[in-house]
Amino acid sequence: MNAPTPIRLSAVDQDKERELAQTLFAELRARSTDDPGITRECFAAGENAALEVLRDTAEKHGLKCSLDHGANLIVARSDDDLSKPAIILGSHADSVPHGGNFDGGAGLIAGLLCMIRLQEERRQLNAPVRLLAMRGEESAYYGRANIGSRALFGLLTSNDLNAKRQGTGRSLREAMSSVGADVAAIEQGAPLLPLGFAAAYLELHIEQGPVMIARELPTAVVTGIRGNLRHRRVVCRGEAGHSGTVPRWLRRDAVFAVADLIMRLDEHWNRLLERGIDLVVTSGIYQTDPSQQAISRIPGELYFSFEVRSQSFETLEGFYELFRSECRAVSDLRKVSFEFDERVYTEPARMNETIIQRLTATSNQLGYPTEIIPSGAGHDAAVFANAGIPSGMIFIRNRNGSHNPEEDMALDDFLKGVNLMYEFARRGVQGS
Amino acid sequence: MNAPTPIRLSAVDQDKERELAQTLFAELRARSTDDPGITRECFAAGENAALEVLRDTAEKHGLKCSLDHGANLIVARSDDDLSKPAIILGSHADSVPHGGNFDGGAGLIAGLLCMIRLQEERRQLNAPVRLLAMRGEESAYYGRANIGSRALFGLLTSNDLNAKRQGTGRSLREAMSSVGADVAAIEQGAPLLPLGFAAAYLELHIEQGPVMIARELPTAVVTGIRGNLRHRRVVCRGEAGHSGTVPRWLRRDAVFAVADLIMRLDEHWNRLLERGIDLVVTSGIYQTDPSQQAISRIPGELYFSFEVRSQSFETLEGFYELFRSECRAVSDLRKVSFEFDERVYTEPARMNETIIQRLTATSNQLGYPTEIIPSGAGHDAAVFANAGIPSGMIFIRNRNGSHNPEEDMALDDFLKGVNLMYEFARRGVQGS
Repeated sequence: MNAPTPIRLSAVDQDKERELAQTLFAELRARSTDDPGITRECFAAGENAALEVLRDTAEKHGLKCSLDHGANLIVARSDDDLSKPAIILGSHADSVPHGGNFDGGAGLIAGLLCMIRLQEERRQLNAPVRLLAMRGEESAYYGRANIGSRALFGLLTSNDLNAKRQGTGRSLREAMSSVGADVAAIEQGAPLLPLGFAAAYLELHIEQGPVMIARELPTAVVTGIRGNLRHRRVVCRGEAGHSGTVPRWLRRDAVFAVADLIMRLDEHWNRLLERGIDLVVTSGIYQTDPSQQAISRIPGELYFSFEVRSQSFETLEGFYELFRSECRAVSDLRKVSFEFDERVYTEPARMNETIIQRLTATSNQLGYPTEIIPSGAGHDAAVFANAGIPSGMIFIRNRNGSHNPEEDMALDDFLKGVNLMYEFARRGVQGS
Repeated sequence: MNAPTPIRLSAVDQDKERELAQTLFAELRARSTDDPGITRECFAAGENAALEVLRDTAEKHGLKCSLDHGANLIVARSDDDLSKPAIILGSHADSVPHGGNFDGGAGLIAGLLCMIRLQEERRQLNAPVRLLAMRGEESAYYGRANIGSRALFGLLTSNDLNAKRQGTGRSLREAMSSVGADVAAIEQGAPLLPLGFAAAYLELHIEQGPVMIARELPTAVVTGIRGNLRHRRVVCRGEAGHSGTVPRWLRRDAVFAVADLIMRLDEHWNRLLERGIDLVVTSGIYQTDPSQQAISRIPGELYFSFEVRSQSFETLEGFYELFRSECRAVSDLRKVSFEFDERVYTEPARMNETIIQRLTATSNQLGYPTEIIPSGAGHDAAVFANAGIPSGMIFIRNRNGSHNPEEDMALDDFLKGVNLMYEFARRGVQGS
C-alpha cells in the first residue's frame, strides 16, 4: 500500500453528481415517507416506488432497464446486450418498517451514479457493469431475509413462499406474484439469472454498527459477513431454596452458575480477540422464571439465549465447543445442569480476496482509508458469495445504527464510496 | 466439652411421652388439614384449633392455661402464680397456607411435653417455666411476620394493624379483634407482657434449610438469626445494539456487566467464608427486559434483586459496601451504570452466649451433637432477643425445607430436642 499512484478521478462533473445524489435521496425518501422514518415494504408499494425512482432516472440518462424473473430491476449501459458476464453493482430497494433512507438506498444510488458515469463516458470496459436493484432483503415482513437474491439462485422453497406476512397474513407467493415475479419458476428452484450473468458482485452499504464512527473511517472494505451459531433457549437448572437457610456449599444457584459461564466465555472471547480472531458473543435474553422468582428464593432455574458470530466457520464451531465445554465445567463445579434447544446455524460468507485487495489498493490510490472490517449484519452479498460469485462490499460510515429513522450518513462519505465503486467497476476485477 | 458428666434422663415414662407426642402431632394435623398439607391461618380458625389442642391437653395434665392481651396462650405449672420472671418456651401456632405440620407445631408440642414433665415431677425450679404459644408468626397472610411476638413488646403500629389480608381484604385489626386480642392497647404500643415476665426465651424449631441433613445432626444449637440488606430492584443500564455489528470494545452489554458483578461478589463471599464469617448472598430475580430482548440484540438493560444475609450487622454493612464498590468498578470497566431502589434492612439477632454455652454443654452431657449453626429464616426468638431478653434456639433436623407439605422431621430427633429443652428449662440459665 506504500507509494500509491494517485488516481485522477474521471472527468465527471462532481458538483452535478453531488446534486443528483441529493435529489435521488430526497426523492427516495419522499416516495416512502412513513413517519417516523420511511417504509419500503418488499413486493409492495414502497419498494415499487423506489425501483421507479431508479428506473426513471436511469432511463433519463440513456441507460437500459429491464426486470429479471424475480421482478428485480437490472440497469445496464445502452450498449450492453446482457450476453456477457458482468460486474454486478447490487443493493436492495426495500426497508424495514419505519427504517432509515440509507439502508439499501445508498447502495442503489451509488450503483446508479456509477452507471450514469459509465454511460456518459462511453469508455471501453474489460467487462460490462450492471446495477441490480433487488427486492425483499429485509426479514421484517415475512421472517425471511434475502428473498430477492435467494430467488435469483433458485434457493427459495415452497415453505418460504407460503410464509405469511406479519399482520395481514398475505403469503409471500401472493406478494411476489403481485409485482410480476415468476413464482412458478421460483418454486421449481430454477435459477432466475442466466449462468454466467455475474462475473463479480459488489455491494455498497452503510455500516450498521458503530466501528467506523469510532475509528473515523469514511469508507472501509468488508472482509466477510459473519455467520452465527445460536441457541434460542438454554435452560440452566439448579435447585430453588430459601435464600436465608441454604449455605453456599449446599447451593445449586442457577444465577451464579450462568454468571460464571458468561465470565468464562468473556475470558475466552478476550483471548481470541487478542489473537486477531473475528468473534462476537451475545446473550440477549436472560431470565429467571417470573412465576418462581423471589428476592428471598435461591433461583433454581434461569434461561438464556446464546449467539456467537464470526466470519469463520472454524471459529464458530471452535467457540461453540468451548461454550459446551464450559457448560460442563460449570455443571460439575456448581451442581447444575444445562438443557439446550435446537442449534441454529447461519453460514458466514467470505468476500473474495482479490476483490478485497483491489478495493483496498484503489482506496489507497484515492487517498481513502484502506481499513478492512467485517460485516456483522447479513447482506445479499453473502448469498452471491456463497453461490460462488466473487463478491465484495464497501461500507460507508453511518451514525446511530440502522433499521431506525436516525441513520446518519454524510454525503461526502457516500461520494467517496461512489468513487471507489466506480474505479473498481471501470477497471474490472483483473483490470489495470 | 471433654469428659462430659452423663445426664440421667428424668424419670418420665419415655414410651408414654413418645405416644403423647405422636397423638399431639396427629391431632394438630387433623385439626388443620387443607390438602395438600395443613393451613393454620393466623387470628383465624386453623390457629385457634391448634391452640385448643394445646390447651385441652395441658389442662388434662393439670397445667394452668391463660391468654395474654394478644390472645396468645400461656401454659404454666399449677403452682405458678405468674408473678416471677420465667423461662419462656415459645413457638407459634400458625402456618403458611398448605404448609407443613412441624413448622411452629414442633416447638409447641416440645414445650407442652416439657411442661407436662415439670408438672408431673413437681420439682422445685430455679425459675418458673412457661409455654407461650404465639399467634401470627408467618408473613403469608398480612405481609408482616412475628405479629404475635411484636404485639407483646408494643412493636405493632397502626400501619401494621391496617394491613389487609391477601385475598379477602380483611384488616389485621379486625382479625386480631375477632380472636380477643386487646387491639386498643396494641395500637397504643403498650407492651402486653408485664415487665419481668420473661427471664429467658427458648424456642425449638425445625431447621428450614438443608445443613443438618447434610451434616447428619439430629439437633443443633442456634447461634443467631440472620438479618438482611436488600434491594428489590437494581437496574444495570448499558446500551442496546445489533449483536452482529458491535465489536467487544464498543459494547456496553448489561448481561456481561452483571455477570461480572455476580462473579466478583462470589469471590468476596468465598473469601469471607474462609475467614469463618457468616454470610449468604442471593440474586433471586434476574431479568432482561421482555419488551426489548432478542437473541440478536445486545442487552442494554438488566434488572436484578440483591440480598445479603448475616447474623452480624457489621458483615451486612461491610458486604453491602463491597457490593456498591464492585458496582462502581464494573461501571467503569464495562461502561454501564447501576440504579438502586430503596435499601431495606432487617435486623439480625444474636442468641445469648450463656444460653448457647448451656445448651451445647447439655447436648454434650446427653450425648447429642454440640454443633452450632445460624438460622437463616426469621423466628419470634429474634424479636425476644432484640427486645433484650436472653434467648436461645434449638434446631431439629428436617428434610425437604419448610413452608411446604413435604417437611419431614423424625420423631427420634424431635424427642432428643425435647430432652435438651427440658434439661435446660429444669436447671435454668444459671442453674446446676
